[in-house]
Amino acid sequence: MSTARPSGADAARVMDRCDRLAGISSLPGGIERVHLSPEHRAANDLVAGWMAEAGLAARQDAAGNLIGRLEGNRSDLPALVLGSHLDTVTDAGRYDGILGVLVAIETARRIADSGLELPFALEVLGFTDEEGTRFGNALFGSRAFAGQVGEPWLALRDRAGTSVRDALTAFGLDPARVGDAARDPAKLIAYLEVHIEQGPYLADSGRALAAVSTIAGARRFAITVTGRAGHAGGTPYDRRRDALVGAAEIVVEIERLAIRTGTIATVGRIRAFPGGINVVPGTARFSLDLRAERDEDRDAAFAELQAFAGQVCARRRLGWHVEELYRADAVACDPALQQAIEAGIRTTGDADPAVLWSRAGHDGMAVAAVTPFAMLFVRCGNDGISHHPDELVAEDDVALAIDAFEAAVLHLIQAHG
Amino acid sequence: MSTARPSGADAARVMDRCDRLAGISSLPGGIERVHLSPEHRAANDLVAGWMAEAGLAARQDAAGNLIGRLEGNRSDLPALVLGSHLDTVTDAGRYDGILGVLVAIETARRIADSGLELPFALEVLGFTDEEGTRFGNALFGSRAFAGQVGEPWLALRDRAGTSVRDALTAFGLDPARVGDAARDPAKLIAYLEVHIEQGPYLADSGRALAAVSTIAGARRFAITVTGRAGHAGGTPYDRRRDALVGAAEIVVEIERLAIRTGTIATVGRIRAFPGGINVVPGTARFSLDLRAERDEDRDAAFAELQAFAGQVCARRRLGWHVEELYRADAVACDPALQQAIEAGIRTTGDADPAVLWSRAGHDGMAVAAVTPFAMLFVRCGNDGISHHPDELVAEDDVALAIDAFEAAVLHLIQAHG
Repeated sequence: MSTARPSGADAARVMDRCDRLAGISSLPGGIERVHLSPEHRAANDLVAGWMAEAGLAARQDAAGNLIGRLEGNRSDLPALVLGSHLDTVTDAGRYDGILGVLVAIETARRIADSGLELPFALEVLGFTDEEGTRFGNALFGSRAFAGQVGEPWLALRDRAGTSVRDALTAFGLDPARVGDAARDPAKLIAYLEVHIEQGPYLADSGRALAAVSTIAGARRFAITVTGRAGHAGGTPYDRRRDALVGAAEIVVEIERLAIRTGTIATVGRIRAFPGGINVVPGTARFSLDLRAERDEDRDAAFAELQAFAGQVCARRRLGWHVEELYRADAVACDPALQQAIEAGIRTTGDADPAVLWSRAGHDGMAVAAVTPFAMLFVRCGNDGISHHPDELVAEDDVALAIDAFEAAVLHLIQAHG
Repeated sequence: MSTARPSGADAARVMDRCDRLAGISSLPGGIERVHLSPEHRAANDLVAGWMAEAGLAARQDAAGNLIGRLEGNRSDLPALVLGSHLDTVTDAGRYDGILGVLVAIETARRIADSGLELPFALEVLGFTDEEGTRFGNALFGSRAFAGQVGEPWLALRDRAGTSVRDALTAFGLDPARVGDAARDPAKLIAYLEVHIEQGPYLADSGRALAAVSTIAGARRFAITVTGRAGHAGGTPYDRRRDALVGAAEIVVEIERLAIRTGTIATVGRIRAFPGGINVVPGTARFSLDLRAERDEDRDAAFAELQAFAGQVCARRRLGWHVEELYRADAVACDPALQQAIEAGIRTTGDADPAVLWSRAGHDGMAVAAVTPFAMLFVRCGNDGISHHPDELVAEDDVALAIDAFEAAVLHLIQAHG
């Protein structure tokens, strides 16, 4: 049915579908699609239709992930899994995650249409909740895929006080059966993911695609600084224990420390309490997202930060409390799979494919617990901006990504043939 | 009916009533009573009963202020107004404002019980919304009393998006008639207010009471720093325009600048947007409350802060936008009224009354537009802490305050006799 590689048409379809998914949002005028929301359901329904149209049998698993499957030579063969995630951050761009799911569908469509004998099944995964936007803890979908979602996770609550457990029930899923989403490693061949780079390195080097070597480890913290609230007028400076000014000193130092140590540290949230315009803050809370290529660099930076914060808090008579919300150590891509990705990139005319380490976390970090993985990065426009409405990908680069990804899958089919 | 000065019993009643009012709260486990809320209504109802019991005719005015009136020798004489406010900040103490209303009621009760010929009417005012907790703009009740609430104020919205106008309607008041709360200066003698000091100066000097010389001017700002949101992992530092780190630098400098210039500056609120734990903040918003004994010092400090912020924002490629929410210049107490307050304090055995300037704003700043005013400060315990659950006043000091305030009113009765 298909002719040889209509990449342009496939890429145009992917771009169009990214636009259509962007319309499924809880944020007026922007994009937000979080775990177990009406938008989660609507996106799964829409993408399931696209999977079916590409020849895949679509279903939703017990964690809310969307799965499209193309059987191999015979039914129940282990699966080569292609995919990414369908959820977003708040006020997101339209390619992060989504692009990888849609490129996987196009790749699966080509394989299905080719009539090739498949030595394994092919699955396309649309993971839920890679971002952790709603409940603070990332990778719910891929952790469930790896059988690693336990009771504490189900007890987490969103800002409205709804637990993951109750949200699963409201979504029509059974919290007691989330474990059913876990996959048997013996039934998996590997996991391959296409994702936008979310950085400017490919654009700076003039390349469209890269293979990924490693996904950086990340730790996320909720930090609370406590002092004493007081009247903004009547509290002399020598008696103030202003939690916010202490927190602000630490926020400034976090940036300095990260630049100095070559790590990446971001404070994305902050609040002062009680929050009166004329009240000295008695409590300040902020988040910290800390990453590095090597886990030991990340952990050394955090230890240094704790020491600095201890000094600030002692000087200001403040308390300091850290809760670790999330921790993922660096995870390396499988060398053979990475070579398949590089071979795929070579078919697009790039003789010496770039290799990048991923500063962002991805579902592969979780999936790696049950099957080896590798990733293909696609160049970002707009200076590499991501998690922002200005996130941009060129249609020509998407066409190259589909070709390279298909070639990588064909490479694995041959290797398993 | 009354015997000579049962100050102890009166003070005990005041303390008990402070506790009872503390129970009218929208904050579980704490105190919050904001403008035009169910708690506002409940507090007005409760205090109206106490006014009636003290011999005052109680009514609510068109702005939601509670007024209890004792007629003078003949009806419709100009009024000497005693009072303070009944609203609170969030997670408040139980004496700020409330104490002044309750001491005024005890004072009026004594005058009423004394059977004295009154050359003026006596009114007790329980102002609403001195704090501005709900809509951000302080002194609604006393500004309305002074005829200075206009259309822009009615358009202000709370965090839930409800306008003052709609909240007035929901409260049972007519937004079109707020002007009816305005008082004719010819019908006013003066305004006297008892208030806790909200600072540690009286406690440090070992005195219970002070006369107030001046209420410091205050300006309040909503400040917005804008950069560009981006992915926490993928945005290199040389490309970041992190609005929150810029804001944090400015927050730290605000404290340094205030200490250096002898002004008082407080950042009570801060938020980063979009607020994702893994997103570089594209926008940071914070509040600034700025005070000084002299307006020119306050304004010079703000100009210096703007210059500093301009440098930070230029260096970090950030935008800087300031909206002034509130501005009140310093207001001096009336010298003759201040002398009456000092005379009142002398009757309690303090031969050389302390005189303090108020670092906090008070209703007198607004009332001064229609009638002269003076204030009596009462010592705070707990190191002067206020706007905090630990706010503390000693019952013995309240007894002294009632005696001094009554004596000050008698002083004015004699002066007008």
